[in-house]
Amino acid sequence: MGMTISEKILAKAAGVEKASAGEILWAKVDKAMMDDILGPRVEIAEKLKSLDKNIWNKDKVVVISDHYTPPANAKQAEIVKFTREWSAANGIDNYYEFVGPCHQIMVENGHALPGKVIVGTDSHTCMYGAMGAFATGVGSTEMLGVLVTGEIWFKVPETIKVVWDGVLPKGVMAKDVVLKTIGDIGHAGATYKAVEHVGTTIENMIMDERLAISNMAVEMGAKVGIIPSDEKTEAYLAARGITDGYEHYESDADAVYCETRHYKAEALEPVVACPHEVDNVTAIKNVAGTVIHQAYIGSCTGGRYNDLLEASKVLKGRKIAKGVRLLISPASKEVWDACEKDGILRMLSEAGGTILAPSCGACLGLHSGAIAPGEICISSTNRNFLGRMGSKDSQIYLASPVSVAAAAIEGKIADPRKYL
Amino acid sequence: MGMTISEKILAKAAGVEKASAGEILWAKVDKAMMDDILGPRVEIAEKLKSLDKNIWNKDKVVVISDHYTPPANAKQAEIVKFTREWSAANGIDNYYEFVGPCHQIMVENGHALPGKVIVGTDSHTCMYGAMGAFATGVGSTEMLGVLVTGEIWFKVPETIKVVWDGVLPKGVMAKDVVLKTIGDIGHAGATYKAVEHVGTTIENMIMDERLAISNMAVEMGAKVGIIPSDEKTEAYLAARGITDGYEHYESDADAVYCETRHYKAEALEPVVACPHEVDNVTAIKNVAGTVIHQAYIGSCTGGRYNDLLEASKVLKGRKIAKGVRLLISPASKEVWDACEKDGILRMLSEAGGTILAPSCGACLGLHSGAIAPGEICISSTNRNFLGRMGSKDSQIYLASPVSVAAAAIEGKIADPRKYL
Repeated sequence: MGMTISEKILAKAAGVEKASAGEILWAKVDKAMMDDILGPRVEIAEKLKSLDKNIWNKDKVVVISDHYTPPANAKQAEIVKFTREWSAANGIDNYYEFVGPCHQIMVENGHALPGKVIVGTDSHTCMYGAMGAFATGVGSTEMLGVLVTGEIWFKVPETIKVVWDGVLPKGVMAKDVVLKTIGDIGHAGATYKAVEHVGTTIENMIMDERLAISNMAVEMGAKVGIIPSDEKTEAYLAARGITDGYEHYESDADAVYCETRHYKAEALEPVVACPHEVDNVTAIKNVAGTVIHQAYIGSCTGGRYNDLLEASKVLKGRKIAKGVRLLISPASKEVWDACEKDGILRMLSEAGGTILAPSCGACLGLHSGAIAPGEICISSTNRNFLGRMGSKDSQIYLASPVSVAAAAIEGKIADPRKYL
Repeated sequence: MGMTISEKILAKAAGVEKASAGEILWAKVDKAMMDDILGPRVEIAEKLKSLDKNIWNKDKVVVISDHYTPPANAKQAEIVKFTREWSAANGIDNYYEFVGPCHQIMVENGHALPGKVIVGTDSHTCMYGAMGAFATGVGSTEMLGVLVTGEIWFKVPETIKVVWDGVLPKGVMAKDVVLKTIGDIGHAGATYKAVEHVGTTIENMIMDERLAISNMAVEMGAKVGIIPSDEKTEAYLAARGITDGYEHYESDADAVYCETRHYKAEALEPVVACPHEVDNVTAIKNVAGTVIHQAYIGSCTGGRYNDLLEASKVLKGRKIAKGVRLLISPASKEVWDACEKDGILRMLSEAGGTILAPSCGACLGLHSGAIAPGEICISSTNRNFLGRMGSKDSQIYLASPVSVAAAAIEGKIADPRKYL
């Protein structure tokens, strides 16, 4: 009986020949990522000191201040300061700040490589599955254990195989693919499972699109949303100067899946997740006309180069509706720079958009675009939970960047295909 | 006996032939500006309703949501929402939001014209003095009176004449001129007076520079920092499609000043205002080497096109120091767009700067760049009061944009001239 990608990576990390779903094993961690909000300042720094232990391998630890940059108040600034100073004091050279959401920074800087086991203090750590890594979010206390031992135990997850074949219609993006998938599997349908995304649709996606898919695995409860790494992954890494130090894995032909789902890309149309659950997914036509007040393009889910590029195609030469604000937060400084160079930021600004600094800010209502009672936001981010982006009396619709752009033009939820 | 510019404008606004310092008169208001933080939501909306009065002239009222955009939390978002909805409900067509600090918006959009009387609910309303207007900040209750009657009483201010002649040395900016002036006059030295800025140095300044000078008049306690409007003012307005509807004024040769100060531009070197008073001014060489954590270029004082342009000359091809963040918030969307088109944003970003949305945010610690206890910020903004940008245990040095840029490179306060 063969193994899935997840089983193979975990077996290797545990130093065993074979691993099967349901087994518990101890895996060596290749990279441990902490952010500012749930990183050192939450128990970790204090407990590490009280244990009088050293960090197992400083080169394998990455710390990124992203949720609270730029800080909205002295308290947020103090957390960033603490995170910065703790990193310096503990010899963590891989410290980043003010450059954007941690997950994008991990990927851009080669900290998320194929075949590796990566844990992070943020739930969307599962995104590195798109690089062919076994990556998942952990609690701060568990991170403390990793920092001291370099290991973590896992129950090897069962895998749901999700196959998308065919070509996505114009105006339908990776975000629609994952929202549709989540809508079908449900927000708890993959709890403690791996989701493996395969098929020609996924194979043909550029890395920016694959990352949007894997990012949202946790919205089905999954440990990871894994995509077999391939020559596209290699090219992405090579462009960043990384040509070795990683291994490709793919599931065996006779690997065991707990469930397999098949989709035809051609049949997909733009979708949205309606308030207040990510799996409350419907075709955009069913809610078209819903008035919106804010349109948000950004985050580790929907703020990459390709997201801004596609949104700019919708917005080029057009203007957003009066009374609506369109906020765009590129997923990283690298994305900001690339979009600036290619005139994408200009197109978005000329349409009436406000270009924010790269940050987690508005995605979870911490700053830089919170919404008021009674307001409705359509967003390319990953969660539409009650009160997530501000007031508990507000509403969030999740959609692709082109759908967000279309809504900004009309001031109402709209089908993006008419603008492409 | 002749009249000063301020006396002439106030006389005209009061419908009298002559006005002299010390007289009390009722002036017709040409434009009334409200922001989000001290505008409609502070008594004004409620009291206006309870009075059952209409706004005297809706076309003369401008409302700008700038302090709380982009909102850092639901409460800030709610204030912006209230401001937006109140403006719509009251027929205020001149409503702006998410486009930057109110004063820059007023000037760019032709709401601040030569010879006019303008009041605003923000203390730096005095900035329109650079357009040759008599402009000053008023309290929210006083604004209520203006909204109902269209008039306001003034005690005609005495005028301090400040003459700068000659050519500023390289690396010395308008910000240095006004800081030096404030250092000498003192933070209360011009209380209830007008300051008239004249001399060849001022005459040769472009509007961006003049606006930086007038913006800080209130930091000496002045009602207004007035600069005679001229062909430069005309050209600035003409570029925005405004060619009439205003009048130039200049002081008579025999106008009475309560004080006159003379400066030679050639003798000025870069200066800073040290914590925690704006008049705590010293030559930059006296504090060079002071470690800084944040460098901030932005606001209605120091975030205009010319400010970013000059800063980019210092930063071009260089990198900011490790551990320092450089935050840049263009003074308006227009400034953002112009700096993007001319490659200025790119140069600032390539040096390591983070480009924020146009906003009042960090200048007064509301969001987008607050600082932590123990941190030191060098800033091109207008106030360094205790706790202004975040923690009460932080410190702010005020300086020109090039001095801020130089400090970002070294991680320490530094003389900008070595980089120019």
